[in-house]
Amino acid sequence: MNYSQTDGKRVQAALLIIGDEILSGQTHDKNLPHIAENLNNVGVQLAEVRVVPDIKKEIIDAVNALRRRFDYLFTTGGIGPTHDDITAEAVSEAVGRELIQNQEARRLLEEHFKYNGTEINEARLSMANTPKGAELIRNPISTAPGFRVENVYVMAGVPKIMQAMLDNIIPTLQGGAQKLSRSVLCNLGEGSIAQGLKDIQDKHPDIDIGSYPHYARANYRLSLVIRGFDDKKLQDVQEAIHRMICDLGGDPIRGEELDNQ
Amino acid sequence: MNYSQTDGKRVQAALLIIGDEILSGQTHDKNLPHIAENLNNVGVQLAEVRVVPDIKKEIIDAVNALRRRFDYLFTTGGIGPTHDDITAEAVSEAVGRELIQNQEARRLLEEHFKYNGTEINEARLSMANTPKGAELIRNPISTAPGFRVENVYVMAGVPKIMQAMLDNIIPTLQGGAQKLSRSVLCNLGEGSIAQGLKDIQDKHPDIDIGSYPHYARANYRLSLVIRGFDDKKLQDVQEAIHRMICDLGGDPIRGEELDNQ
Repeated sequence: MNYSQTDGKRVQAALLIIGDEILSGQTHDKNLPHIAENLNNVGVQLAEVRVVPDIKKEIIDAVNALRRRFDYLFTTGGIGPTHDDITAEAVSEAVGRELIQNQEARRLLEEHFKYNGTEINEARLSMANTPKGAELIRNPISTAPGFRVENVYVMAGVPKIMQAMLDNIIPTLQGGAQKLSRSVLCNLGEGSIAQGLKDIQDKHPDIDIGSYPHYARANYRLSLVIRGFDDKKLQDVQEAIHRMICDLGGDPIRGEELDNQ
Repeated sequence: MNYSQTDGKRVQAALLIIGDEILSGQTHDKNLPHIAENLNNVGVQLAEVRVVPDIKKEIIDAVNALRRRFDYLFTTGGIGPTHDDITAEAVSEAVGRELIQNQEARRLLEEHFKYNGTEINEARLSMANTPKGAELIRNPISTAPGFRVENVYVMAGVPKIMQAMLDNIIPTLQGGAQKLSRSVLCNLGEGSIAQGLKDIQDKHPDIDIGSYPHYARANYRLSLVIRGFDDKKLQDVQEAIHRMICDLGGDPIRGEELDNQ
């Protein structure tokens, strides 16, 4: 899974989700977890996400804030043929490049429409518009491509199409270290383990320990998730947490033991 | 459903989701759609969402950017008793108020712990910390309260607890107009209806028309969603879209007809 991975380097990305339908609650975003996991597999950590409406100025401001701050910016949504699809235009303005009809994209679309017997019209061809100098991101599902310009990757919002595009992007990324995680589960209250957990966290400042209570149906469960870049350290912290919970009379189980049950 | 609703006024909110577990993809946020729908029921539209990690500076910067820009800011996550729960501290710094032990919160927690026979310790009592002058947001599930300070509402991340807190917040909000929506479904391609849809959109600048293709299993379906504040206008636009699709030989169905099938 380690494409172009440079040991030790931290590489961070942001995700910009574009669409009124997410903000209204009508559509539930399913792309965030998929993108987060696939990026981390090649050593890129998702460090911020924003959701903005289909308003050009909002998209431009968010693109500029995020592309400057992170190594990579990924966007989803707003690249279809209808009037509410304004991502290509907004990203062009954000990066200060002219919006042009990309000839390679036009050729791909025309071939696809001819093959399917679909009428070629202005709206459909608008899906060939990209900022000048952009590289296409192909997708075998609907053919209409996404694009990369500088460090901004523009993808579709429909999950299957987004996933196909991301599959094509992943091998091209220059990742750093992959963030690893280990966990310990128990049924003690957060308040009972908080002091011991803090002591362990304080001893390991380069490891992040998160505490997540779950109340699935009537079953309470506490997940302690240990994240970092060095598995040897994660293992040490996992053992320290395991011991601490035993000492408190809890009944800890390591995440990997649960996976094997 | 219309609490304190002021006709015509637009009231907007932002949501700040706090947590490494969302950015890593390990936990899938379920709060956004619930919050969006419940706010809109009382005339408050969600206009931006951000997800940030458990890093104090990131939380402070996002709180300050969003609370200044929108009428209301809601946050989820980071209010438990463990070391990674830093939302109260971060919000205190963001609004420039001292973090204090809220005496009412302390009393609620102590009563609850005594009733349950739970040990009272420093970590558990840290859940009583709020910015000075904050108002508590009660929750009957776990007792540990959220709080409001100025226009910032701090809630838990666990969905059931967040929902209980939101139920207590909703009647206190000063909402404006409720955003309404109507829809037309069909199985035409987006590219086939794009020009007609744009013409209708151009004639109704105060209405937002969104076009959303779905590829559920093998079934393609196109949802055209019409959003705005005046149902008479929504109805006019819905009829115009319905006619346009009929003219194109499509087989349109209004959203409310589908609901009744």
